[in-house]
Formats: sequence, structure tokens, C-alpha cells
Amino acid sequence: MNPVNNVPLVQEIDQRIAGFQLALQDEALDGAFILQNVDLFYFSGTIQTSILFIPCEGNPVLMVQKGFRRAREESPLKEVIPLNGRGGLVEGLKEFGIHKLGVVGLEMDVVPASHYLRLAETFPGCRWVDVSPAIRKLRMLKTPYEVDQIRKAASILQKGFTAIAQVMREEMTELEIDGHLFLIARREGHMGVLRMRGWNQEMTHAHVLSGESGSVVSFLNSPHGGSGNTPAMAQGAGFRKIRRNEPIGIDYGVAVNGYIADQFRTYVVGDLPEDLKKAHHCSRDILDLLAREARPGMLCSDLYHLALDTAEKAGYGRFFMGHQEGQVKFVGHGIGLEIDEFPLIAPHFGEALQPGMVMALEPKFVFPGKGVVGLEDDFLVTSSGLERLTLTEQTLFRIEPESLTG
Amino acid sequence: MNPVNNVPLVQEIDQRIAGFQLALQDEALDGAFILQNVDLFYFSGTIQTSILFIPCEGNPVLMVQKGFRRAREESPLKEVIPLNGRGGLVEGLKEFGIHKLGVVGLEMDVVPASHYLRLAETFPGCRWVDVSPAIRKLRMLKTPYEVDQIRKAASILQKGFTAIAQVMREEMTELEIDGHLFLIARREGHMGVLRMRGWNQEMTHAHVLSGESGSVVSFLNSPHGGSGNTPAMAQGAGFRKIRRNEPIGIDYGVAVNGYIADQFRTYVVGDLPEDLKKAHHCSRDILDLLAREARPGMLCSDLYHLALDTAEKAGYGRFFMGHQEGQVKFVGHGIGLEIDEFPLIAPHFGEALQPGMVMALEPKFVFPGKGVVGLEDDFLVTSSGLERLTLTEQTLFRIEPESLTG
Repeated sequence: MNPVNNVPLVQEIDQRIAGFQLALQDEALDGAFILQNVDLFYFSGTIQTSILFIPCEGNPVLMVQKGFRRAREESPLKEVIPLNGRGGLVEGLKEFGIHKLGVVGLEMDVVPASHYLRLAETFPGCRWVDVSPAIRKLRMLKTPYEVDQIRKAASILQKGFTAIAQVMREEMTELEIDGHLFLIARREGHMGVLRMRGWNQEMTHAHVLSGESGSVVSFLNSPHGGSGNTPAMAQGAGFRKIRRNEPIGIDYGVAVNGYIADQFRTYVVGDLPEDLKKAHHCSRDILDLLAREARPGMLCSDLYHLALDTAEKAGYGRFFMGHQEGQVKFVGHGIGLEIDEFPLIAPHFGEALQPGMVMALEPKFVFPGKGVVGLEDDFLVTSSGLERLTLTEQTLFRIEPESLTG
Repeated sequence: MNPVNNVPLVQEIDQRIAGFQLALQDEALDGAFILQNVDLFYFSGTIQTSILFIPCEGNPVLMVQKGFRRAREESPLKEVIPLNGRGGLVEGLKEFGIHKLGVVGLEMDVVPASHYLRLAETFPGCRWVDVSPAIRKLRMLKTPYEVDQIRKAASILQKGFTAIAQVMREEMTELEIDGHLFLIARREGHMGVLRMRGWNQEMTHAHVLSGESGSVVSFLNSPHGGSGNTPAMAQGAGFRKIRRNEPIGIDYGVAVNGYIADQFRTYVVGDLPEDLKKAHHCSRDILDLLAREARPGMLCSDLYHLALDTAEKAGYGRFFMGHQEGQVKFVGHGIGLEIDEFPLIAPHFGEALQPGMVMALEPKFVFPGKGVVGLEDDFLVTSSGLERLTLTEQTLFRIEPESLTG
């Protein structure tokens, strides 16, 4: 299908461009260059190597360096032209009546310094402004089309979370479980990577953390990191073998058409010790409470404190969302094309909940030397409160140990 | 083990720092800030969130923002200190006698513009120089320890390439094969991601491209891209089902302790048409020729032309390394901590081969509408020529079709 005839996609992208142009006008920018794959996809429908220029009014121009024919097939934008070199960039814009730029936006948090400096040289005299906050704010509110993609991803997660309980057994390595989770996800249509915007925050498709692995602190901005199997990666599954009666925390992500679902479940072969079982119940209590109390207009920071207070009252405050150096100051985050979107459900995030926000809420508890337990579910903020997008049972998955004599 | 007692690691890192300090002195830099995970790992042995300062002489200082205890456990560097905020950076350096900086290096090709601008503000009056070329040149030459890691990764690839022939059958989707390849790799110790330095070049662990998928052009700097299953990813495996007598190209990567092996094999259920079979033979002829002719002192560009000439003489010039818009101008690339390392075996890469270089040579042919065939093997340049690191049989993998009546 010609993308220009793909009415939903045309409307989606028209609406995104219009929203962004309002933000550009608010900040008195002449326009913005969009370079990063995720933002390119959001505004143009393609990630073929391109520079997208969005003027503060009028048509955006997609200038394609590699994959021109494919970009034209994939993008519903009207102006898609081939681009050769830096001179081509200036000439390309001139063709569309853009002769001089004064204040210009760029995704300063992700575009490499060398790209920024080359652009600054190509357009001398410009003032460059970081437009990533505006983009992230725009992307924070999802359309029904976007929510549908996340639902599809959530249905794959349900299959994976359910199927892995049939595969998991004592003495299996975390790595093997991780591999099976990927196989299931890919078979069902996971696009292969999970994107994260944060610098140096490399995302794996899953964390499979058994016993004390669940309490190993890492560089990741996450309550759990895991040892991995090398300091070169320093997160996620390793060669550790599953043992009886210890928590196995599985953080699992899938992306469909770019959109991510991100959930967490706890497994055990045998049964959990009482204290961990209670903490797991506390996670469910917190999720229930947040799902009941959250509604448009409520501050994200208040939602965070509701979760923290509940954890503290249950006596688990110092294990909530990590322990010691590994403790993180959030209980949820937006999901969409990236796994670290707005809103943050965090003490210093001042935004109020709005219909259209989609977020993963992940009350977890990390016990030093013992591991991580908890739940993570995905929610859509609607006009009346939270709608749960997660399809997986909200449970502790228990696997019967094989008989020692069997 | 305390890393400071890990003699090989201590020596590796000492040697890397010394080599980099020579480069800093050559370029008259006072020092360099290292921020990116891969370069951090190379120079410090850890990727816990840190800023590493390497002065042009004296001890480097690793300033850790998150994962301090883990960084101290993982890094053999002598000076590992906690870091709080930007003021902390200036103070941290002062503690080690570094009071004023004049000309400073930064990895400008990968560090985001906003990080660069904050550093420039923190150290006013400095001149900033891109040290990535120097780092990439240093990393181009591997030590025996590094080559051993690549050998380990190559032995996992051998298992995967062999095992997948037992799994593959008609009507299976590319995605399912892709998932199985990941499961095998993870189970054996693949660290979970393949790193690529190039901006916006997102790497998947494999390309599984059957029939015409092998000739779909993508944004990737690779002879093949594939359609993937969404424009949001636009590469690799999709829902296409394997058919009889068509080429299935598998590009497969594994990383062990950070180090990547990257190889390609062609599969077919049934048999290939004669023209594709001949092209596959031509790939092997080219690999044999390059392995025979390459030796230290030979220019990388000459090696490229040797490959191209052979392809042209065989009548396959216009299908060599892609077709039309998708044709790329290289036949090999360095591998190590990243998949796009130096040297490039490309017409404009002026370096001569040197002992210690490790590279993937990948003569492939892409036939529009039909697919991709070829081989990719990994080689170490030794004083006498090329040593093949690939363990997988250098063959076209043929799978017997299941009987239609069976």
C-alpha cells in the first residue's frame, strides 16, 4: 500500500507534526532538524537514513541519504527528496523556500556532538535549542493507534510469561531462560530491539535474575541490574543456575511496530520464603492501590509517594525499588517507542496525569543476597482512571520441583 | 578475584592506557574524557556509570556516578572515586593535581551534544578535540587476550550455524529461525547485544533473510538489510516463510566478554538455482584468494580491489556487496568490541594490514528479487598472512526437504 493512501498513518503523522509545530512556535523556533531513528520514525514513518526538517509552519522535508525508495514507500510525508552531502542539505531546504534559519531545534540529548558541530558549521549564525523535551512531551500522550500497538506487544508478553513457566526448571541457567523468552517473542513478532533514550543505557530484551543475582547493583537506571555474564555487559542473565525456593525475577519487553510493552513477573521453583512472599503481596497491594487511586489531574509525584508510603507502612521501605546504592527514585515510567518515556512516576516529576499517557508501574523489592520480587504492569490513563493493558495474570508463578527420585 | 590481582587484565589495561597516552602526546592534548560504554570498558574494565579522565601522562581517574562498589571490583585502575555532579568533576580532578585543562579530547562521534556542551561549560576556555579516531586506531590492533575472546565467540557461532540446520524447515518463518539462533547463542554465553559505533546503526544479533528478503535495501551500512516485520526496525527477519530452493542468508553475531565474532552462511532447503550456486562458489573463491594474498604491508584498498576484480571477472560485479542503491563499498571490516571497527577493507581506506588486526571478510552477492548468497569469515592478520578464526565449515548448508507425502 502506498503510505499516502494509508489514512490512519497519514492522520497520525499529520497530527504529530501539527503538535510539534505548535511547540516550535511556542519556543519561537524557525524549525527543527530531526535525526534520531525513533524521532524520525515518529514524525515520518521511516528510519531510512535521513535528515528531517520540520519548519515551524508548512510541510516538513525528509532528506534521504540511504534507502530513498524505501523511505518514499514507508513515509506518508509529501516532501521526500534524496540528499547528497552537506551542500545538498542547504540546497534541499532552499528548494522548499527555506533560505535562512535563525533559531533551530535539535535533539541535543541524543545527537552526537560531531553531528551538532557539523550542522552548526553548515548553518552559521544559528542558535541551537534542545527540542528533545518538547518531543518527549508530545510523545508522552498516545493515540488509540499507538495504544493498540502496545496492546499487541502486551499480548506477546502474556504468551511468553505463560510459556516460560512450562520451560523453567531447577538447574537451568538464567541465560537459557533468557534465550527462550527471546525465541517466543520473536516468533510472535517482537521487532528485535527495545529502544532506550538515556545515554549509555543499553537495553536487553529481558532481565532473568535468580536468587542473589536479583540484588546485584548495576549502572542501569533500574531497581535491578544483575551480574550478566561479563563486566562488558554487566546486566541481565548469567550462567547462574536456578535453585529451589528462590525468587526468579523476569523483566520482559517486547516491541511491536516500534511500541514497547514492559512487564515483570516473579517465578519460583518450589515456594518462596515467607518474607519474600509477603513483599510480593505488597507489590500487588501497591499496584491495586495505584490503579484505584490514579486519575487525570493527580500529580505523578503524589502517585510515587502513595507507593512509597504503602511500602514503608508494610515495613519494606528500605528494600523498595532497590536497596542502598541500587535504590532508584521512581516507581513507574512512560512507555512507547522508547522504554524511558514520560511521565516518570517519581518525586521530582511535576506533571499531572493526563488521558493518553501510557506507563509501566513496577513496585519491586530487592533483598540483598536474596533477590528481587514484584510485579510490573502497563496502564493507560483514561478520563476515569487507569486501564490495565497487561494481559498476564497478576500472580507469583510457582513451578513444581521435579521429584528427586523421578 | 580482586581485579588489581588479575595480572592479565592489569597488563592489558596498562598497555591500552600507555598507547592512548602516546596518541594524546602526539596530538598535544592535555588529556581526554572517556564517556561511552565501549571505550570505558576498553580503558577501565567496567561500564558502571562513570567519567574516565586519562591525562597525557600519569594515572587515569575513574569517577563513578552509579555502581561505585561494582566499578571498584571490576576495574584494575588505581584511582576509582565516587562522583557527585559537575562540581564534583572539577574537584575530583583537582584532587589528582589536575587544575587546568587546555586542549582536551572527547569521543565526539558518540557523545551526545548536550554532554559535550555541559563539559565545555564546566571547563571554560578549553579546546575540544575528537579523540575517537585515535581510540579506534588503538583498538584496531588486538592482543592475544582479545583474539582469544573472539575465538570463543566464533566457537559459539559454529554451534549455532550447525545446530540451526537441524531446526530449519520449509514454512518456518525467518523470525522463528532468528529466535532459535539467539537461544543457542545465549545458552552458550553470548552477552546479549552486539555493539555498533555508527550513529543510528542499530544492530540485531542476526539477519535471517530468505529469498527476496535478502535483496531488500535498508538504511544499514551493510550489503543486505531485509524488510524486518515493521518499518520501525526495517531490517532482519520478518514473517516471511522459508520456501524450497531459495537462498537463506544468515548473518550471525555473538559477543563474549565484549568481543564480537560476525559471520555469514547461506542455507537452502532443497537446492539453489545454478546461477546462485555459482555466485556462492565465487564468494568462496574470493575468500580463498584474499586469505592467500593478504599479508602485512598490503593496503586495505588493494585487498578490496582484489575481491572486486574477482567478482567482476566472474561476471557478478553488479551484484557484489549489494545491488544498485544497496551496494556498499567495502568487502570487510574490523571486529572487536564493536562490529564496525577498523580496518575497513574499502577503496578509500589507506591503511596497510598489520599483525593484530582482526577482520570479517564478507564477499556476498545480492540478486534483486532472488536474495543474498555468500560467506563471511573472521581472520587475524599475523606476521605471515591471515589466520582464519572462523570454525564453521566453509560451505553452502543444504537441508533435505521433507517429503510431501511424509
